[in-house]
Amino acid sequence: MPHTSREIQLASRPVGEPTPENFRLIEVEVPDPGPGEVLVRNTFMSVDPYMRGRMNDVKSYVPPFALDEPMQGGAVGEVVASNDDELAVGDTVVHMSGWREYAVLHGKACKKIPADLASAYLGVLGMPGLTAYVGLLDVAELRDDDIVFVSGAAGAVGSLAGQIAKLRGHTVIGSAGGPEKVAHVVDDLGFDAAIDYRRGDLPGQLRDVAPKGIDVYFDNVGGDHLEAAIGHMRPHGRIALCGLISMYNATELPPGPNNMMQVVGRRITIRGFIVTDHAARAADFERDVSAWVRNGDIVVRETVVEGIERAPEAFLGLLRGANTGKMLVRLS
Amino acid sequence: MPHTSREIQLASRPVGEPTPENFRLIEVEVPDPGPGEVLVRNTFMSVDPYMRGRMNDVKSYVPPFALDEPMQGGAVGEVVASNDDELAVGDTVVHMSGWREYAVLHGKACKKIPADLASAYLGVLGMPGLTAYVGLLDVAELRDDDIVFVSGAAGAVGSLAGQIAKLRGHTVIGSAGGPEKVAHVVDDLGFDAAIDYRRGDLPGQLRDVAPKGIDVYFDNVGGDHLEAAIGHMRPHGRIALCGLISMYNATELPPGPNNMMQVVGRRITIRGFIVTDHAARAADFERDVSAWVRNGDIVVRETVVEGIERAPEAFLGLLRGANTGKMLVRLS
Repeated sequence: MPHTSREIQLASRPVGEPTPENFRLIEVEVPDPGPGEVLVRNTFMSVDPYMRGRMNDVKSYVPPFALDEPMQGGAVGEVVASNDDELAVGDTVVHMSGWREYAVLHGKACKKIPADLASAYLGVLGMPGLTAYVGLLDVAELRDDDIVFVSGAAGAVGSLAGQIAKLRGHTVIGSAGGPEKVAHVVDDLGFDAAIDYRRGDLPGQLRDVAPKGIDVYFDNVGGDHLEAAIGHMRPHGRIALCGLISMYNATELPPGPNNMMQVVGRRITIRGFIVTDHAARAADFERDVSAWVRNGDIVVRETVVEGIERAPEAFLGLLRGANTGKMLVRLS
Repeated sequence: MPHTSREIQLASRPVGEPTPENFRLIEVEVPDPGPGEVLVRNTFMSVDPYMRGRMNDVKSYVPPFALDEPMQGGAVGEVVASNDDELAVGDTVVHMSGWREYAVLHGKACKKIPADLASAYLGVLGMPGLTAYVGLLDVAELRDDDIVFVSGAAGAVGSLAGQIAKLRGHTVIGSAGGPEKVAHVVDDLGFDAAIDYRRGDLPGQLRDVAPKGIDVYFDNVGGDHLEAAIGHMRPHGRIALCGLISMYNATELPPGPNNMMQVVGRRITIRGFIVTDHAARAADFERDVSAWVRNGDIVVRETVVEGIERAPEAFLGLLRGANTGKMLVRLS
């Protein structure tokens, strides 16, 4: 029985900030699943900052989205038809065929997950969560007594990175945009302090809330945050470069931090990383973080936009910082 | 019997590029050595790029030079009077009281060295040599099959870093200023290729001589070299930030590399370091490099300026790249 599914295609490549015109909503007929395949009705899809890079036609660590094809990304859904031995109708799965209501997938491309944690597998228990976990523990090599600074602290990755550091007993400083997010980071997530980058003067604000300096910087935004962090770092500090959302829409390459001299003098390590290199840590991550989530040790916040037709809006909002916690689209 | 000694004092702090007026040559009476002290007649003194930072009155990893006091730095000399149990008249020693003809020193502040390698202990067997050794092997974590790029390749540090990489079987690319140095780097030092940074277009030149990309960059200069190296790096590349000589005279902070995004996508590690943190490797270094020097495996080039009165000229020349190999001042 064929299903009608709506999906979002990439209609044109954005120059600078994407606009709704870069996306196209179309209706397609979904074929029945073949041998070894399943049909999944997606319930949530993820929008993530890294998708902006895939909209450009440049070689990178993930291939670009194709024009006039459905976009891709993390999604969770329910199996509604199965020709796979290990997946049954009614199972909840996570997979990479988002931006569409129905997906036909090889069973091997799906991972079965607990239904009650479905959306969490796009955030705290998914790729953003693993990013926070390995970025803080492995890339930044978190050590006892480190003072930790996290930008994008109200976002999916930053909120978890900071909370993991707090669970380990560290002093943790966040950066977020606007007073509501700053309050959320301190009051709900338990960071020791947070600065509002919209108020400007990052170096001064950082000095005020972290008078002793910082040892670890988990960078989700780049730009002036990176420069301020280098300038405020104690000797032997470490910077995990996760993403540079402040630069994703840049049409000209922005200047880098002007204080590379201090990277020498303070023996700072700056390390870029991509979460897919760290799959070997997935089991440790899932064990630790799922226990924290079930015990209530970690506060999980989601911003949910309703309906696939609003997925572009959700994505554009994400790039402007409209979300608190993980940005998701619920597909009804 | 008191000696008359000439010494160079810091007369004023430079703004931007230092000038001869920042230095003062004076004559002083040197006291006899007290208990546990020795009197050393210096035969060679070192001028090094890091000294430019010490001319500024700012807190850094080494304290600033004091005004109206003799400057300091590596020197070798002969013990001419000794009240130390372990050092005898005639011994050759290396120590940190350069910029003067005679120095009274605690015996413990001197290290006895072979007379035939005296000047080498200011270069290939000294601080610049250890810098090259630990920067390449420990900080950049040299691995099999790495393609290595070294800036300042005709200088004291870069020439050794590149030659160590060649001894280990790597493809090594250098950067130097001017056709003579470029020829020296390839013909005398055995690098596989070298680019002349004075010709500009570092990215294009680098692409031509290292079409497969680079895995390790040993950075002695910073600025556009660092940006070009990031842009030409293969995944999981490593950059040892040793010194940024292009920025030492800057009066305004220059913009950093504009391609920090690639540091993420290519999972690049950038690590600043200071040689004094790596004293634990001194024994390994001395064993390896002294064997290489004695076997003729390493080509050692020195640029020698005669007379303490020309020490400021030697230092200013060093900052402009007037030297090939280690820049030294011979004190007669």
